[in-house]
Amino acid sequence: MSQRQLRLGFILHGVGPGWDDWRHPDAVVDASTNFGFYKRQAQSAERGKFDYLFVADSVSINARSSPHYLNRFEPLTILSAVAAVTERIGLVGTATVSYTEPYNLARQFASLDHISGGRAGWNVVTSWLEGSAANFGKDEHLAHDTRYRLAEEYLDVVKGLWDSWEDDALVRDKATGQFLDPDKLHELNHKGEFLKVKGPLNISRSRQGQPVIFQAGSSEDGRAFAARQAEAIFTHQETIEEAQAFYADIKARARGYGRDPDGVFILPGGRVIVGSSEAEAEAKYRELAELGNLENALRSLGRGFNDHNFSVYDPDGPFPHAVAAEGIKSNQSQSARVLALAAQGLTLREIALRLATPRGHFVGTPEQIADRFQHWLESRAADGFNLFESLPGQLDIFVDEVVPILQKRGIYKTDYPGETFRDTLGLPVPVNRHTAARAARTAA
Amino acid sequence: MSQRQLRLGFILHGVGPGWDDWRHPDAVVDASTNFGFYKRQAQSAERGKFDYLFVADSVSINARSSPHYLNRFEPLTILSAVAAVTERIGLVGTATVSYTEPYNLARQFASLDHISGGRAGWNVVTSWLEGSAANFGKDEHLAHDTRYRLAEEYLDVVKGLWDSWEDDALVRDKATGQFLDPDKLHELNHKGEFLKVKGPLNISRSRQGQPVIFQAGSSEDGRAFAARQAEAIFTHQETIEEAQAFYADIKARARGYGRDPDGVFILPGGRVIVGSSEAEAEAKYRELAELGNLENALRSLGRGFNDHNFSVYDPDGPFPHAVAAEGIKSNQSQSARVLALAAQGLTLREIALRLATPRGHFVGTPEQIADRFQHWLESRAADGFNLFESLPGQLDIFVDEVVPILQKRGIYKTDYPGETFRDTLGLPVPVNRHTAARAARTAA
Repeated sequence: MSQRQLRLGFILHGVGPGWDDWRHPDAVVDASTNFGFYKRQAQSAERGKFDYLFVADSVSINARSSPHYLNRFEPLTILSAVAAVTERIGLVGTATVSYTEPYNLARQFASLDHISGGRAGWNVVTSWLEGSAANFGKDEHLAHDTRYRLAEEYLDVVKGLWDSWEDDALVRDKATGQFLDPDKLHELNHKGEFLKVKGPLNISRSRQGQPVIFQAGSSEDGRAFAARQAEAIFTHQETIEEAQAFYADIKARARGYGRDPDGVFILPGGRVIVGSSEAEAEAKYRELAELGNLENALRSLGRGFNDHNFSVYDPDGPFPHAVAAEGIKSNQSQSARVLALAAQGLTLREIALRLATPRGHFVGTPEQIADRFQHWLESRAADGFNLFESLPGQLDIFVDEVVPILQKRGIYKTDYPGETFRDTLGLPVPVNRHTAARAARTAA
Repeated sequence: MSQRQLRLGFILHGVGPGWDDWRHPDAVVDASTNFGFYKRQAQSAERGKFDYLFVADSVSINARSSPHYLNRFEPLTILSAVAAVTERIGLVGTATVSYTEPYNLARQFASLDHISGGRAGWNVVTSWLEGSAANFGKDEHLAHDTRYRLAEEYLDVVKGLWDSWEDDALVRDKATGQFLDPDKLHELNHKGEFLKVKGPLNISRSRQGQPVIFQAGSSEDGRAFAARQAEAIFTHQETIEEAQAFYADIKARARGYGRDPDGVFILPGGRVIVGSSEAEAEAKYRELAELGNLENALRSLGRGFNDHNFSVYDPDGPFPHAVAAEGIKSNQSQSARVLALAAQGLTLREIALRLATPRGHFVGTPEQIADRFQHWLESRAADGFNLFESLPGQLDIFVDEVVPILQKRGIYKTDYPGETFRDTLGLPVPVNRHTAARAARTAA
């Protein structure tokens, strides 16, 4: 296929990303810890040849958290369960470098990678809520730039552990009795600024070598990290022009680091609302938007600013700019979005409601949505999309009505090209660092 | 059923617990990271109405480790995958309190518990290999008694996190818009000798309230911990008399702590070798034993003594008693077993080979094995057994030939009595501590 292909991911949500999505008449109220619901959504996405499923995460809640955060599956366990009931779709989970031992994290992703036959992906995050530290015996949350230094070192350690075993280390010859070639099992012996890990890891490499690396930061630190390390990047941009600028920036940075820019996928998030007519799609969107209320929208806004309480301000006044500093410490990308809306003169109420139920770019008929996807793809605003939708049946409508149009246009696969997630994305299997070093020594 | 019921667990092993089991003609050499193999074994055990599946663990290897330890699935991920392809069988995994954040551990077990519809169990261990510390940035391994103090505090924290949500905390009323009753979501605010954890956990309680607690230590510290905290105990005793003494001791201790001794299951491990005649069973055992060699048996022995290198001693001389101190620091139960054999005058070679392929108590015809099980059960040497076997087909032979005899005798269930693991074991759902406190306040 010479035609550049659209990539699609599906975010496995329980009660949905919006605060009040669960109040929709069709919503499954216990979806967030309902494996049957997750299994059905996962199998529908695989039927639609989605590249991957994604499970987001966070490690701190309080009684003011939204239903989405409050009560839900942990990513590595739910993805392992989903692996057992799917065959080809990629399985991407968020895990934080801030509060998980790298040996445990490397091992659980490698285990998921084996269980799934080489379909794992890791979305690398640094936790951005100060409340998280207190769940892990820490008094203080790391500063934003320190978190990214930790993330770089952490990822190096995890990749090093994933390379503990060369691909032919396991000899397993019944006749000679040799199980292991000990020269092909390697300690890491890492001692860095933040971490000290000896290795080797107690699980070998999977068929795809290493899980695929995802990342989601859009701050300066986040972009630099993503361009150096990530194979796929989640993002959110308000307009197609902003998306094109972000896309061009990341691809240029990746090239600057000597990487193939086609091996770095840019994947904005979005909710698709499909109607048989434009009016029906708009009506579906309005039904969702009207579930929300100001109180919950303000709480939701607060999460990106270290759980700041926005209900104390006049909702019809301007955004309280003094709060911006909390966003800098917490989630820089989200707070920058908010400040941009404030600069346009929107009131606090307008900002909160707009963020609570984003209208997005993908409300319309199947043809309109296919047009929009194709336009974003061809104008290099995106390599694909990270879609979310938690109302039962809506994903099936997308699979039945939008996917065939994309396939007919030749911009979307009609089947998985291979078995592993790297096969699906056309990404190379990373060569084991020790095997590479051995080859270099032999050549020298 | 008034007849006391035999409990059976099945240990999901890949290439088997013996060093050279993988050399058996029938062995699947890549079984340890082969999900298809695990799935088939799990479904066979469920067909045989086993109470639970168990996945053991460790967090450190080196090039001298046995095939069993070298390369294998991580317990929480593989059990989550197995949960998706089974319906009633319990799912028990080992996880160490030494090197895992309690918030992450509590959450992953709770997630497995939801995925499986209330079938999770946690085998609480303190890591006993000094090599483990180096994989987690630690210079020193904790002393044996300190590890058990940590285990007590850790388990309190995890149970506290599991009680973050009262069972009716999730209101989820679409009409009123109330998702959560905030009075029924609780912070833990733990500050102890080792741990500081705020809570609440970001996942609710499952249908069985909390995962079932397993434990395996047989040292003085281990027994005290088990009798206070465990609902099932893995053990190993050489003779039925020793098993009876251990059984009586644990049950008396549990009673001493005010617990119902019937709610503490004593489960010795064992390998069952079934033959259509006694001679055939013996021949099967000899075939396995002959796969082993002295070099590997000595390495295997070393693991219980902090990876001590026993190959430097005369194998036909006495056990080197100076090494005993390493066992005290490391695995006290296993080293005590070894010292007991040494006291009987066995040579180093004899001890190593005996431990490498234990003859066990369960080699024989189906009737003989059922007799042995029944005798252990009725003489209160055990409440059941934690069985292991990794050669394909052997578990099915057990299910087809031994299980029906046990069922006919009325000492083994013909079906699962309910849906959760606690239903299967007849264990009560733990009352949420906050709900209990509220009830006590109301009554006062």
